[in-house]
Amino acid sequence: AQALKNFAVGIATGSIQVIDLTQTLSEDTPVLVLPPEFGQCAAFSRKEISRYDERGVAWYWSDFTVSEHTGTHFDAPVHWISGKDLPDNTVDMVPAQDLIAPAVVLDFSKEAAADPDFLLEVAHIEAWEAEHGRIPAGSWVLFRTDWSKRDVDAYTNRRDDGAHTPGPSTAAVNLLVNERDVLGFGVETIGTDAGQAHLLTPPYPAHTLFHGAGRYGLQCLENLDKLPATGAVVIAPPLKIKDGSGSPLRVLALVEG
Amino acid sequence: AQALKNFAVGIATGSIQVIDLTQTLSEDTPVLVLPPEFGQCAAFSRKEISRYDERGVAWYWSDFTVSEHTGTHFDAPVHWISGKDLPDNTVDMVPAQDLIAPAVVLDFSKEAAADPDFLLEVAHIEAWEAEHGRIPAGSWVLFRTDWSKRDVDAYTNRRDDGAHTPGPSTAAVNLLVNERDVLGFGVETIGTDAGQAHLLTPPYPAHTLFHGAGRYGLQCLENLDKLPATGAVVIAPPLKIKDGSGSPLRVLALVEG
Ligand SMILES: Nc1ccccc1C(=O)C(=O)O
Ligand SMILES: Nc1ccccc1C(=O)C(=O)O
Repeated sequence: AQALKNFAVGIATGSIQVIDLTQTLSEDTPVLVLPPEFGQCAAFSRKEISRYDERGVAWYWSDFTVSEHTGTHFDAPVHWISGKDLPDNTVDMVPAQDLIAPAVVLDFSKEAAADPDFLLEVAHIEAWEAEHGRIPAGSWVLFRTDWSKRDVDAYTNRRDDGAHTPGPSTAAVNLLVNERDVLGFGVETIGTDAGQAHLLTPPYPAHTLFHGAGRYGLQCLENLDKLPATGAVVIAPPLKIKDGSGSPLRVLALVEG
Repeated sequence: AQALKNFAVGIATGSIQVIDLTQTLSEDTPVLVLPPEFGQCAAFSRKEISRYDERGVAWYWSDFTVSEHTGTHFDAPVHWISGKDLPDNTVDMVPAQDLIAPAVVLDFSKEAAADPDFLLEVAHIEAWEAEHGRIPAGSWVLFRTDWSKRDVDAYTNRRDDGAHTPGPSTAAVNLLVNERDVLGFGVETIGTDAGQAHLLTPPYPAHTLFHGAGRYGLQCLENLDKLPATGAVVIAPPLKIKDGSGSPLRVLALVEG
């Protein structure tokens, strides 16, 4: 019964490092843009309430508006129609122990640099496992593409026919859900699905199949290049929004020297 | 170098329990009300973007508006004028390793039930330490009052002369900052200060002295009655809002069987 004490000592002494995987959230945070016939999500905005002035002599504070899916954010199963009727499918109902879980990092940054529409396939996952071992059940699978290092235009990478950003294939998602029983899928891009995933079968396979199986998504992650392929632990606790479909959040990773 | 691995096993097997200290965030979440001459913070509100309908055929999501200090929230040093010029005083700049720290729980629920204006004094802290040992440097001090078990009216407890809720005395805050070197102060009530703390010297001693010393606040916590007096670890990672004075967040506590 010393595991928690040893953990606390590790954090305090720095032998366990805390790595922030979160984008800074501001008026400049890029947002998802959907086809014009659909509702669009809000960018981050704020209204200062006071700043040590007549509106509040000793305090500074603001109100802010944001979408549940702006910036580094968590997707709950209810976000997608396939997860609509699952139990505990909203951010306020996700079991607390799911908010802390091991992570594996699949580095396909070279492939994504060569092809912005790169699809992670079953063969890529199998090649990764041949080197690093089988993906453990209950893990976050973090898909490293180095997309977070791009400037805003290259990050959203929008063209006339929509966004061109990497994501998983339908078969890869099926493998991760059904054969590997992962907790969820985390990406550096704005969506867990590829920018052109509306053309896949089913459309948006990551959203459809992960959320239909009660699994989670994490988007707009940074610093995946600072994590080992295996051995990190991810803390991803969304806001406890009643009936919330997702939420911006702070995502931390723990790594031991 | 097994501390993180043992921790991950403890979480996965349940020998380390994850306890959610967070209020559900909704349109019904109570907010701080200041004297009418000051700016007031926004309650939580939301606007549905789509719900599996013509606005978004397969997805449900919302925008929301909230203040940085609504619901269970984190106060950064810049929130108060005394912390205005400190380095790294905003929620986006707080060092990542401060977001995970040990906690002690000071149970004064009986005293707070008897007197809604109960002030935590130096003598109370010394009596607690005589039983449980000295408060370790770098800890969160969580002030249990069972306030979170009250219904909304008794929770805000507003009368003509303002709110009547418990908090720390100036001397108690000075002890915690200067003699104990704590990380911050967490409470079940809406403010780290007592409801009548504008009458103390200095006014709002918790905000003034903790933030002036670069320490943090946590408000609107729940489930403090589920924590041991010593031995818990608190994860309190605010949103990474650029220049943010605070933020709603998910607060988790870890406890080992
Ligand atoms: N791809 C989408 C389509 C519709 C709504 C949201 C998304 C997301 O990526 C999201 O979850 O941020
Ligand atoms: N007491 C206050 C006075 C002014 C502004 C905010 C507060 C808070 O309690 C807070 O930080 O939520």
